[in-house]
Amino acid sequence: MATRRHPVSGEEQAPGDRFAATRALTLELASPLSDADATIQPFPDASPAKWHLAHTTWFFETFVLRDRVRGYRLFDEAYPYLFNSYYEGEGTRHPRPKRGMLSRPSLDEIRKYRAHVDDAVLRALSSFGPAELELVELGINHEQQHQELFLTDILATLAENPLEPAYRHREERSDAAIQSGLPRSARNDGWLEGRTGIVEIGAQAEGFAFDHERPRHRALLEPHEIASTPVTNAEWDEFIADRGYRTATLWLSEGWDWVLREQVERPLYWRDDTTHFTLAGRIERDPAAPVCHVSYFEADAFARWAGMRLPREEEWESAAEAGDPASGQQLDEAGAVVPAPKTGFFGGVWEWTQSAFASYSGFKTAAGTIGEYNGKFMSGQIVLRGASCATPRSHSRVSYRNFFPPHARWQFTGLRLARDS
Amino acid sequence: MATRRHPVSGEEQAPGDRFAATRALTLELASPLSDADATIQPFPDASPAKWHLAHTTWFFETFVLRDRVRGYRLFDEAYPYLFNSYYEGEGTRHPRPKRGMLSRPSLDEIRKYRAHVDDAVLRALSSFGPAELELVELGINHEQQHQELFLTDILATLAENPLEPAYRHREERSDAAIQSGLPRSARNDGWLEGRTGIVEIGAQAEGFAFDHERPRHRALLEPHEIASTPVTNAEWDEFIADRGYRTATLWLSEGWDWVLREQVERPLYWRDDTTHFTLAGRIERDPAAPVCHVSYFEADAFARWAGMRLPREEEWESAAEAGDPASGQQLDEAGAVVPAPKTGFFGGVWEWTQSAFASYSGFKTAAGTIGEYNGKFMSGQIVLRGASCATPRSHSRVSYRNFFPPHARWQFTGLRLARDS
Amino acid sequence: MATRRHPVSGEEQAPGDRFAATRALTLELASPLSDADATIQPFPDASPAKWHLAHTTWFFETFVLRDRVRGYRLFDEAYPYLFNSYYEGEGTRHPRPKRGMLSRPSLDEIRKYRAHVDDAVLRALSSFGPAELELVELGINHEQQHQELFLTDILATLAENPLEPAYRHREERSDAAIQSGLPRSARNDGWLEGRTGIVEIGAQAEGFAFDHERPRHRALLEPHEIASTPVTNAEWDEFIADRGYRTATLWLSEGWDWVLREQVERPLYWRDDTTHFTLAGRIERDPAAPVCHVSYFEADAFARWAGMRLPREEEWESAAEAGDPASGQQLDEAGAVVPAPKTGFFGGVWEWTQSAFASYSGFKTAAGTIGEYNGKFMSGQIVLRGASCATPRSHSRVSYRNFFPPHARWQFTGLRLARDS
Amino acid sequence: MATRRHPVSGEEQAPGDRFAATRALTLELASPLSDADATIQPFPDASPAKWHLAHTTWFFETFVLRDRVRGYRLFDEAYPYLFNSYYEGEGTRHPRPKRGMLSRPSLDEIRKYRAHVDDAVLRALSSFGPAELELVELGINHEQQHQELFLTDILATLAENPLEPAYRHREERSDAAIQSGLPRSARNDGWLEGRTGIVEIGAQAEGFAFDHERPRHRALLEPHEIASTPVTNAEWDEFIADRGYRTATLWLSEGWDWVLREQVERPLYWRDDTTHFTLAGRIERDPAAPVCHVSYFEADAFARWAGMRLPREEEWESAAEAGDPASGQQLDEAGAVVPAPKTGFFGGVWEWTQSAFASYSGFKTAAGTIGEYNGKFMSGQIVLRGASCATPRSHSRVSYRNFFPPHARWQFTGLRLARDS
Repeated sequence: MATRRHPVSGEEQAPGDRFAATRALTLELASPLSDADATIQPFPDASPAKWHLAHTTWFFETFVLRDRVRGYRLFDEAYPYLFNSYYEGEGTRHPRPKRGMLSRPSLDEIRKYRAHVDDAVLRALSSFGPAELELVELGINHEQQHQELFLTDILATLAENPLEPAYRHREERSDAAIQSGLPRSARNDGWLEGRTGIVEIGAQAEGFAFDHERPRHRALLEPHEIASTPVTNAEWDEFIADRGYRTATLWLSEGWDWVLREQVERPLYWRDDTTHFTLAGRIERDPAAPVCHVSYFEADAFARWAGMRLPREEEWESAAEAGDPASGQQLDEAGAVVPAPKTGFFGGVWEWTQSAFASYSGFKTAAGTIGEYNGKFMSGQIVLRGASCATPRSHSRVSYRNFFPPHARWQFTGLRLARDS
Repeated sequence: MATRRHPVSGEEQAPGDRFAATRALTLELASPLSDADATIQPFPDASPAKWHLAHTTWFFETFVLRDRVRGYRLFDEAYPYLFNSYYEGEGTRHPRPKRGMLSRPSLDEIRKYRAHVDDAVLRALSSFGPAELELVELGINHEQQHQELFLTDILATLAENPLEPAYRHREERSDAAIQSGLPRSARNDGWLEGRTGIVEIGAQAEGFAFDHERPRHRALLEPHEIASTPVTNAEWDEFIADRGYRTATLWLSEGWDWVLREQVERPLYWRDDTTHFTLAGRIERDPAAPVCHVSYFEADAFARWAGMRLPREEEWESAAEAGDPASGQQLDEAGAVVPAPKTGFFGGVWEWTQSAFASYSGFKTAAGTIGEYNGKFMSGQIVLRGASCATPRSHSRVSYRNFFPPHARWQFTGLRLARDS
Repeated sequence: MATRRHPVSGEEQAPGDRFAATRALTLELASPLSDADATIQPFPDASPAKWHLAHTTWFFETFVLRDRVRGYRLFDEAYPYLFNSYYEGEGTRHPRPKRGMLSRPSLDEIRKYRAHVDDAVLRALSSFGPAELELVELGINHEQQHQELFLTDILATLAENPLEPAYRHREERSDAAIQSGLPRSARNDGWLEGRTGIVEIGAQAEGFAFDHERPRHRALLEPHEIASTPVTNAEWDEFIADRGYRTATLWLSEGWDWVLREQVERPLYWRDDTTHFTLAGRIERDPAAPVCHVSYFEADAFARWAGMRLPREEEWESAAEAGDPASGQQLDEAGAVVPAPKTGFFGGVWEWTQSAFASYSGFKTAAGTIGEYNGKFMSGQIVLRGASCATPRSHSRVSYRNFFPPHARWQFTGLRLARDS
Repeated sequence: MATRRHPVSGEEQAPGDRFAATRALTLELASPLSDADATIQPFPDASPAKWHLAHTTWFFETFVLRDRVRGYRLFDEAYPYLFNSYYEGEGTRHPRPKRGMLSRPSLDEIRKYRAHVDDAVLRALSSFGPAELELVELGINHEQQHQELFLTDILATLAENPLEPAYRHREERSDAAIQSGLPRSARNDGWLEGRTGIVEIGAQAEGFAFDHERPRHRALLEPHEIASTPVTNAEWDEFIADRGYRTATLWLSEGWDWVLREQVERPLYWRDDTTHFTLAGRIERDPAAPVCHVSYFEADAFARWAGMRLPREEEWESAAEAGDPASGQQLDEAGAVVPAPKTGFFGGVWEWTQSAFASYSGFKTAAGTIGEYNGKFMSGQIVLRGASCATPRSHSRVSYRNFFPPHARWQFTGLRLARDS
């Protein structure tokens, strides 16, 4: 199936083109799904594919059209209740664990909703000032986040099916596209020397970034080294063989409770000694590819087993500044992505850091409902850095902060080691 | 929408006609559903519509084709795992609470499965002896049970949707068709005098009946009376107005715990003072119609509030012998059935008795896997008698024993009062 | 330790003597316990020993002294809230699962409460008319029930302790005292022929009995036989050896779910191949003694494994009429009772029947709060018949109906087989 | 009741005196308790008083006597299983949620255990080298932690009792003893200017400190101010009056879920508009005293409501260096402590910071089982700083890091505000 290529460098595009391309990619992602596929919610923290299509549309309809375009009328008065995710400021909403109960509206009806909103945004675009354009840009970035969630959630959905259906057939990608972004400073032993002393991290004041990436601020780094490549499937096999999942003293206390309670003994989608379930169905694992679908608890235990530690997020960002956020294996078009061998800091898998998700010095929450976007999740979550094979390429930044609870495994999550020096 | 009329008197039909008609009705029931509608499992005790279509087919494929037709090849080797319900003798199976995780096979694929099995059964039918024909008859009755569950489960599914979608539009039925079956012995005061002394109940040895309706055996009845009509919505309004759901001493201890835990304050699908959600969407309640979607706990509390009791199942059966099991509001064709005012013992709503589901004296479990059909549920369940508006008309018998746990409400369940005399 | 002998035949005693003897036995039962022993609640359905001492006292204080003795003043205004068990008519009460949170009042304080109430009852006794004396008799029977619960709950408490402490040392009892009550009609093959046709069961109108044993009424028995002895530990060993706990098809559906969920593989207090934990600590099992601490689910599965069934309660009562309710191993004095080999219908272990607990024809709930005593538990429970080694001897009657949920195992519960003939 | 005064400055004492004084204080803490009081476990994260007495003794017995004193024999072979808390390296142990099931050993037996171990430690002390003395010091500090937990857990236990029993009667303390430790730099407006730039925090290499307080390392502070006093009960009343517990947008997402699920509407032990339950029973709240028994979620919501934030732990430590860790309201003797008005950084209540509990740069886990002491809890917990009214005075350090999950409220936990400047 032919899919259109997604533009790599978003910021250079006209807003309308970038909006249209983003919206089109989401539709492409949904194209192999049946109405039933798009309706299932595999567990309460994941959402149905259809819901992602509708919620991203609701975001534009609410914060751009309803709030900023005089005379706009809602596509359906019932949709705000159904497709608001977590914005308390927007009133009551359908309970999250019940998202899988909605066979109506159908996938086709949601496509009509999308077309209606796309049309209204594109017609209004020429009249927009900077504030409105900033909201459109936020909506685009919001939709890109949901493109990745779309893929991780449909993977979780299909993984529940004993028939092991594939989302799509996998198209092999050239290594050239993937293997890039390795900082030139990498030593022969596979380690990079980290910067020491006061550095600056966080997003610059100019250009798009989420609120929690700001302000750019100073951080103090002690001498350390950081691995030039993430931990691989082959290395994870060694951890298992050495009874890593059976050795309590390697684990955080919460992590060990989790291992026992959930009877964890391997990464989430590993099915036997050599295969894993992927968007391309059940396939052989590539030993050289980064291990994927591991929790923070697993990443932390692996690092302890290896006698090392996970990097702090300021160490990671400081080291990654030498890389190109648009490099590596990221999402360029709709496809059955599977992490490929990786050398740089971006693409393939998100990397767990050892940093709890917290506000930067001087962080200010945005005013109004949009202020709920990130700030209210600053407890119980761990920062991940980089980008994965499911991250739209133009979405990545060196200052990007992803975050998930320490037990979460259904994202494309791996790890990179660090050590004091 | 035009639907074919379902034959009233099953036993007189040729087996092939009866098989075909039953299989056709199931398809008609599914015709208004999208693939997504048919995929949702609203709660663990209910099943997706698609699953009912497949499971009833698996039943014929397994016990008739696989076991009795030489050379039959399974439609799909994976289906027995997916569509076995609870037969331990048939090996491991997909966990019941996960039935809503199956977007594949699609509804269309299941229709192909049905056609494949229908064809094989019909081709083999002429060669069948009595044992095989008995299994076909069991499969037909099994499918009729699932036709009712199909309707109650799709009602539960649509009831979860804040959009309140209708399964179908309701077609008004003539009262003539519904109001029948009232025993001539009913007195002017609405009570029937029950039989006293030793009576016989249970199914005769001849003809089709489920194992737990047998053997026909003697029972001893003390003097009692039984109401000629079930309790109505109007009467239930009085119970609520008199603080029935707030008065602990009216309730069984288990029932009161359930009321508090589930915050129960009215029948399951009542939405406000005058409406309820039905297969026809949200509509006004008919005050004269039997109250429906109440649990045993509610039925028992109502009877205590009224100073009476529920009938024992032997009292019910003895009284109902004067009625015609093919009478009353039962399922003749696919439609948005809603209980209508009722006078006799059959149709409209199932009626909770006060009898725990137990084996009759002399009960013998059938040999083999089929023996798991009913016997293993003889704990924690209460017998219901009669038939409902969703029971296929040719499925009903005076000896019929339906059973559900005392808190269940998603079936078409109501009650009829009794009292000692 | 010397303990006083409890009078065997209660009805012949003067009410004051019977009251005093019952109250004294309860204190004797508590004498080996520390304040801490008496405070623990091992699980929500069991109660602390101290609570039993206080609740039985509250029963007399409330229904006899407060309601019937002019000028009586409560020992402590806070106690009704703490020690009401489940009487909705008596207002709010301390939540049942929180009974183990009460280190105060202390065991000694509860003893003072008992002395206060005993004194008031004994002083008032001479002025009591029949209605009051009936309430005293009810209170005595109520306390006797709690004497048995006291023992089963303290056994459950001590069983939680890895140190395996004994409640008391066991004193061996003469076989003569225990082996009695076997109906003369027992055949050589160990089976009794049951009565057939219409029989009468239930308590006579005269004399003390609980409300749910009444009215005496007719029942219809079909031809059957009933075993003359209960199932023994040795027989249960065979069931285990034959993979009884691993064979799904032997079990009720609810029972099999319970086996898997609770990982049940032997009776509750069996600790290894030959020992069990008892009130006398961990000791060797007697192969000839009746199996004890099995649930209804286990009893039912054993019967199915043996190709038989459990008796119905009317069969049991009809057969047991030939026996003496005061015979067999029952509680005569405070001691570490352990079921001994048993031949008759009474003593040793309670026997699961196949009858769900339900009202008899013509049952009337008593007026007022006392009406909550039994009637509201008539759902989800199974009738047990006979008496156990922990039942106060004068408490037993042939019409006695004990009842527990089908998964309960912490009572002294065993089984006797029956079969159609 | 006269109690001995506990020495203020531990480090200057001879090890034997310090050991004896610490052990004696624990016994004094237990002196008002009955065996039953000491047995109850109010919830799984809290422990029975008796268990604290035994576990602290097990710590000395295991890591000092068993490991370091030749020929020492365990007091009881069963105790390690019962009284190991969470050290995986020490083998299996009694499940934490079952600690309240142990009426045996009795409180008196545990006192004998303590005396046995005390005697052995004191006899061996003269022969100890530095490594052993370090373990003794660790054991003393460990026991001091449990002295505080003893008080918070017995408060939780007594709070479960509707009788509202007091642990002890409260003895009023002079304000002079409590109001101290306020840094001279406090401005008239009640705010302290924080230090800016690179500071050093963490424990020096010399002297006792827990592993997670080390190494001393550099931190970078941005301009900020910190309040000179903690938030008071009076201020919390304003938060409630302003619908703080009803305003979703003030809360972290996890916190709001917690508020709804637990129906939180005031600090843990507040009983009505003016009283709270304390170790001295139910008393009037002091409006000027620091608010206590609030979770991190509540502290964070209050700070957001006030338009400020919680301090980071490096800000707190840097500001508190000017104070005296031995000042303020801390535990000098066994008594019914209740937080009093407070000005400095130490005593009264622990103060939530906004820092997730994590390792310092260069942190090394201790070798062996002792390494499990703190490091394995570095997920899901928040750092608290200072000391409370229940912290033994000699136990406090400016580098001290206490930590609890964000929902925990049964410790003496309050908050102090901070803001960027």
